[in-house]
Amino acid sequence: MTSSIENSKARYAQVGGGPDSFIGSVHRMAARLDNRCELVAGCFSSDQARSLRTGAELGLDLKRTFGSYNQLLAAEAQRPQHERAEFINIVTPNHLHAPVAKAAIEFGFDVLCDKPLCHSAAEAAELSSQLASANSFYGKVAPLFGVTYNYSGYPMVREARHRVHSGSIGTVRHITVEYSQGWLAQQIETEQQKQASWRVDPERAGAGGALGDIGTHAAHLAEFVGGSKIARVLADLGTSFSSRVLDDNASVLLRFESGCRGLVCATQVAVGRENGLRLRVFGETGSLEWFQEEPNTLIVDALDRPRKIMRTGGPGLSQDAAAATRLPLGHPEGFIEAFANVFTDFADTVILRRQDLSATPQWTPSLEDGARGMRFIEAAVASSAAGQTWIDA
Amino acid sequence: MTSSIENSKARYAQVGGGPDSFIGSVHRMAARLDNRCELVAGCFSSDQARSLRTGAELGLDLKRTFGSYNQLLAAEAQRPQHERAEFINIVTPNHLHAPVAKAAIEFGFDVLCDKPLCHSAAEAAELSSQLASANSFYGKVAPLFGVTYNYSGYPMVREARHRVHSGSIGTVRHITVEYSQGWLAQQIETEQQKQASWRVDPERAGAGGALGDIGTHAAHLAEFVGGSKIARVLADLGTSFSSRVLDDNASVLLRFESGCRGLVCATQVAVGRENGLRLRVFGETGSLEWFQEEPNTLIVDALDRPRKIMRTGGPGLSQDAAAATRLPLGHPEGFIEAFANVFTDFADTVILRRQDLSATPQWTPSLEDGARGMRFIEAAVASSAAGQTWIDA
Amino acid sequence: MTSSIENSKARYAQVGGGPDSFIGSVHRMAARLDNRCELVAGCFSSDQARSLRTGAELGLDLKRTFGSYNQLLAAEAQRPQHERAEFINIVTPNHLHAPVAKAAIEFGFDVLCDKPLCHSAAEAAELSSQLASANSFYGKVAPLFGVTYNYSGYPMVREARHRVHSGSIGTVRHITVEYSQGWLAQQIETEQQKQASWRVDPERAGAGGALGDIGTHAAHLAEFVGGSKIARVLADLGTSFSSRVLDDNASVLLRFESGCRGLVCATQVAVGRENGLRLRVFGETGSLEWFQEEPNTLIVDALDRPRKIMRTGGPGLSQDAAAATRLPLGHPEGFIEAFANVFTDFADTVILRRQDLSATPQWTPSLEDGARGMRFIEAAVASSAAGQTWIDA
Amino acid sequence: MTSSIENSKARYAQVGGGPDSFIGSVHRMAARLDNRCELVAGCFSSDQARSLRTGAELGLDLKRTFGSYNQLLAAEAQRPQHERAEFINIVTPNHLHAPVAKAAIEFGFDVLCDKPLCHSAAEAAELSSQLASANSFYGKVAPLFGVTYNYSGYPMVREARHRVHSGSIGTVRHITVEYSQGWLAQQIETEQQKQASWRVDPERAGAGGALGDIGTHAAHLAEFVGGSKIARVLADLGTSFSSRVLDDNASVLLRFESGCRGLVCATQVAVGRENGLRLRVFGETGSLEWFQEEPNTLIVDALDRPRKIMRTGGPGLSQDAAAATRLPLGHPEGFIEAFANVFTDFADTVILRRQDLSATPQWTPSLEDGARGMRFIEAAVASSAAGQTWIDA
Repeated sequence: MTSSIENSKARYAQVGGGPDSFIGSVHRMAARLDNRCELVAGCFSSDQARSLRTGAELGLDLKRTFGSYNQLLAAEAQRPQHERAEFINIVTPNHLHAPVAKAAIEFGFDVLCDKPLCHSAAEAAELSSQLASANSFYGKVAPLFGVTYNYSGYPMVREARHRVHSGSIGTVRHITVEYSQGWLAQQIETEQQKQASWRVDPERAGAGGALGDIGTHAAHLAEFVGGSKIARVLADLGTSFSSRVLDDNASVLLRFESGCRGLVCATQVAVGRENGLRLRVFGETGSLEWFQEEPNTLIVDALDRPRKIMRTGGPGLSQDAAAATRLPLGHPEGFIEAFANVFTDFADTVILRRQDLSATPQWTPSLEDGARGMRFIEAAVASSAAGQTWIDA
Repeated sequence: MTSSIENSKARYAQVGGGPDSFIGSVHRMAARLDNRCELVAGCFSSDQARSLRTGAELGLDLKRTFGSYNQLLAAEAQRPQHERAEFINIVTPNHLHAPVAKAAIEFGFDVLCDKPLCHSAAEAAELSSQLASANSFYGKVAPLFGVTYNYSGYPMVREARHRVHSGSIGTVRHITVEYSQGWLAQQIETEQQKQASWRVDPERAGAGGALGDIGTHAAHLAEFVGGSKIARVLADLGTSFSSRVLDDNASVLLRFESGCRGLVCATQVAVGRENGLRLRVFGETGSLEWFQEEPNTLIVDALDRPRKIMRTGGPGLSQDAAAATRLPLGHPEGFIEAFANVFTDFADTVILRRQDLSATPQWTPSLEDGARGMRFIEAAVASSAAGQTWIDA
Repeated sequence: MTSSIENSKARYAQVGGGPDSFIGSVHRMAARLDNRCELVAGCFSSDQARSLRTGAELGLDLKRTFGSYNQLLAAEAQRPQHERAEFINIVTPNHLHAPVAKAAIEFGFDVLCDKPLCHSAAEAAELSSQLASANSFYGKVAPLFGVTYNYSGYPMVREARHRVHSGSIGTVRHITVEYSQGWLAQQIETEQQKQASWRVDPERAGAGGALGDIGTHAAHLAEFVGGSKIARVLADLGTSFSSRVLDDNASVLLRFESGCRGLVCATQVAVGRENGLRLRVFGETGSLEWFQEEPNTLIVDALDRPRKIMRTGGPGLSQDAAAATRLPLGHPEGFIEAFANVFTDFADTVILRRQDLSATPQWTPSLEDGARGMRFIEAAVASSAAGQTWIDA
Repeated sequence: MTSSIENSKARYAQVGGGPDSFIGSVHRMAARLDNRCELVAGCFSSDQARSLRTGAELGLDLKRTFGSYNQLLAAEAQRPQHERAEFINIVTPNHLHAPVAKAAIEFGFDVLCDKPLCHSAAEAAELSSQLASANSFYGKVAPLFGVTYNYSGYPMVREARHRVHSGSIGTVRHITVEYSQGWLAQQIETEQQKQASWRVDPERAGAGGALGDIGTHAAHLAEFVGGSKIARVLADLGTSFSSRVLDDNASVLLRFESGCRGLVCATQVAVGRENGLRLRVFGETGSLEWFQEEPNTLIVDALDRPRKIMRTGGPGLSQDAAAATRLPLGHPEGFIEAFANVFTDFADTVILRRQDLSATPQWTPSLEDGARGMRFIEAAVASSAAGQTWIDA
């Protein structure tokens, strides 16, 4: 292996992502796409045999493959700097995010964690405070911490953000984010469907069902594009089966700090809906619409003008969108490519930090973004429990 | 003129619909399309010269054209039965609906009134009670009364209703109706834009702005298709200009009598939106989506099945949809055709009643539907004024 | 009946359009929509009883309803001018267009004829020469003659035409018009389906099957929008059943007089296709696309610019489009409205000619347009029969 | 490096793909995505410095990076089997495909070559005959040879193919493949645009312009999905600038061996078109439509049934489609993912052949597919030159 590889790829270890994991393999594909990351170690399952099986399938050095994340972290921490995993990629079920992150930070590893950040807002606050005073392997500087709100990686989402931030639609009046899925329309958690069973279990998923799984994506997107933080929420949460504890559909009225109104609708019981994340931003002089299932299109309206259709790779885009695009116009980029935009931005920063400790990610959502997601969930749950009252987020 | 014409067309007089009226000419086109109505008299404006001008343009007998609706009603009431206008079509600004309707009912005329029904829920209740004890020209039977919630006339809306009512999507879990327009995104009411100025004036429009103008359409559609009445609302109303008194955007959480949740979002400040009425109904085993701007398509989803696209005139439709369709598959029918479906249903009933007083409209929304629309508006306004609380509708 | 009606409506008689006719009722709805036409007489079927039945349903004076078009024409010709049908609307099967038109012209009636114009190019030439020397009821001036290529009535088609003619897409390089239907995918003519049986019968339909029924629409649209006449064709005609004589699918390469290339694809055996007329015009600096099944949208592309979506009633349209539009943005206008644009333009001209014999229709396709359609059919049939050679049209 | 990596990844060397190459980086991303390929050597440019620069950026061992493909091949051939590049991935401009392929085959390397296969049909025939008698490194068995007609890798294209092959649309009557781009609408080759300049140069691109660059994709797709080979073509080729030698737009009538008719339309001067590859297959009982810019949707029509929308990852799909899909429903997969499906199939076969020399690719288009593409180009060029006559392909 030449030194150029060492210089050009961020080394990472994955926790979670074993045989039945969907999101673990997504993270790995995203990591591979741009050739900026190298998977060097892993704890893919708490079942050591399963972990080793995944490691072997991935061509990993099995001496760096573990059934315990604590063992993984300890072993990597002892490796020489030029070999050691630089960041820990957490793709476990939600309830394990915080313990793994906490241990990783303690050692000094950078962390790139799936969303929602953790199990509760209190846990998130603890992580924040731990991180603030933690030391990375580089010494008296905190490790990096990113949260994979991956939808922020789509070029057309970044174009939307650019347009809002540059004032091209005027003051934002209203933001609506819908996120509609149908896969929990039936009570499949009783059939041992693994993806379903942990997501509807408060022990593993946290206080939010649809709220935590997809509502946090929606809330993050509203802030990411709209540029103002969610200040208050009023939520109407529903559950479609008496034995399902967590919400499977949620309508959440929003007030942003700017005073702007908003709405998040998240459902996982909408029969026929796939992964229907739809963003609409209405400003005084223009509006924007984006839909995840046709992600290369951004609909742009302006007062008294015909509608414009902006397209990934097409004319009229900002540098923000162009920089997130690999292919020429008309060659569709999808979910993995958007995910890779987040991954690569984080990895690039990890690599930059080898020489410049002041480097921070340009795009990767932060621990604070993740913590705000936890507060969004808890405020919405509290609002709904109180019969729909406004609660600060 | 032969007796066959007398037998086959319902005679009507229009109140409102003068030179600058949009909705008046829509009603008249709808009335003409199916050849079942004949305009025989009118009071198109309270300005007699303007009224006569419209009457002349319409080829009307100017002796039956008036500048006062009371004169119109009195004169028509005195005509012989075979000549007399059978129903009064009210297309004035909202605040005049009730006075005109009241006078018409008093004489015994049938009434087909634009929406929203009137100016307040109290006024609506009065009309209901007046109608219940009124006598038509046929004697001791109340006149007919219809409200033109015209979107219920689209074949694909009727197909959606049929599918819900026949159980094909199972118990309804959630209904979302959005209605997005952009024409009030700027404060055009200050520029003497006639359509805008009365719609933002509480004296003429009533308690609701966007709520009254389009929110009532949305609420009616939710009930028409979903089959359960709106029981309670919680509303978040916004106004985009400090000098604009009425709401121009509204998010309304719903509870139906069935227990089903719902959401109505109505806005007139969404830059670039045309007349974006979108209906989504989610049931236990299927879901439906319809969009007014492409009205000949109904999206049908079912558990574990590929999406189906139902089309006006196409295979697989119910008799309800087929009966509302004039043309073969692929020949788009639009707004006027849907409006005509309401008009023709009402006119057919008027004609039937010449022989059979028990005839009632199959499709035309009723006075009670209109009254419920007024209660929806007032409950939403009260809920928002109270800081978003649940109010019975 | 007041004189204002006489002044404002063109009186017409319909030939064809009996009980099972689709196109006859479309013409009548189109005629009614704008209140500019009045049906005063008819020969709806050669079966007198059927003709009378239709007349009665339409509320017609049965003394002006006939089972013979010659009787109709003779009777109307003898009526006083202020009562007489001013134009004859021909909606029979194709083979009767020319005989009826010929007889109508002989009497001096204006004629509005469905397409294709007639049965053969020779017949078309005869009609042209007859018309040139015919006298209308007004004396030494030829009657008006229009052909209802109705798709030219859509506002967005007129917008497309305006854009090409005003140079906004530069010199036209290529025009493609597809027209795809699926209703003849099975051999339904053997099941006595009336619409199918005459269209596949060369005695009644003429030399073209799909070519005549829909290919002529496509060819007309190419000329109407593109502004250059079709000079030569090379055609590949297919028939899907050995016992079906006429083409049911056709691919036709075009050369326009301008030198521009083009392509017409017409099929009636494309399973699942409705009435899929799609127009694409590619110029040096821009391009246009329009699709009949979503007729209120025109897609506009320009070099290095994001795509624009022009919409009926929306911003940025020409006067040509605006004048063909009845409703505000977002209120879909459909097939009947477009048809009515052709009808009303013709009727307006008929009315204008009462005072000004120099008046000619602004929009209505002419007899020469119809004749060119016949030459297109015959040239395409000849080209295909010769094994795909170029033939002058 | 563990033996498991050796066992699980196919080692390859790339020829072409230097700093300005679009397609070279696409091949490499496709190769990385599924972790089944490892780039071990390369000749990225004939300019050695540029080649080394690319090699360094890719983290390649610079001892395995060359400025001459002959040197690359010779050096790799001498390496021990467990290190040696197993296949040569050719991504040069068209005119170099054959020389590189020829040299690679001579050594015994497997080859995965971009399309069009080479410069002429004669050259293709030579390659075919060379391959038939060549020996791979495994001895008396020919090397593998694949051509990256990458659009055949989309899951919904494979679903379409499955549906045709399994008879679900009946006998195919007509296939239309359009491929519309706009990037050559202006004469950008004069501005030193590298992608443009070689594509319009017959020395480097071959006899076909749009035909070779995109028409061959269209022709391959027609055969891949439709299941019958193109027997004859009749072509109308156009060039938009007098100084542009090769066609930039082409309409090609087809006859398949089955007797089925078809049409390929390829253009690169359609302003506003991106990468608009659209496939339509019409059968006796059903039809299919797929569009590359929204590649996760397949439109399925059947006689007398509502349209069905099949979606990548969704219900009702064949195993062929499912096996080509990485993500659950609603997570868009795009161009790179489809490309990777071809790459991975080829790489899997390369790996399998380590143990089983009878293994052949299930999906990768073959040398014969590539050669047929060359005959398609030449026949179309000859047909057009002869004034549109039928020529055997």
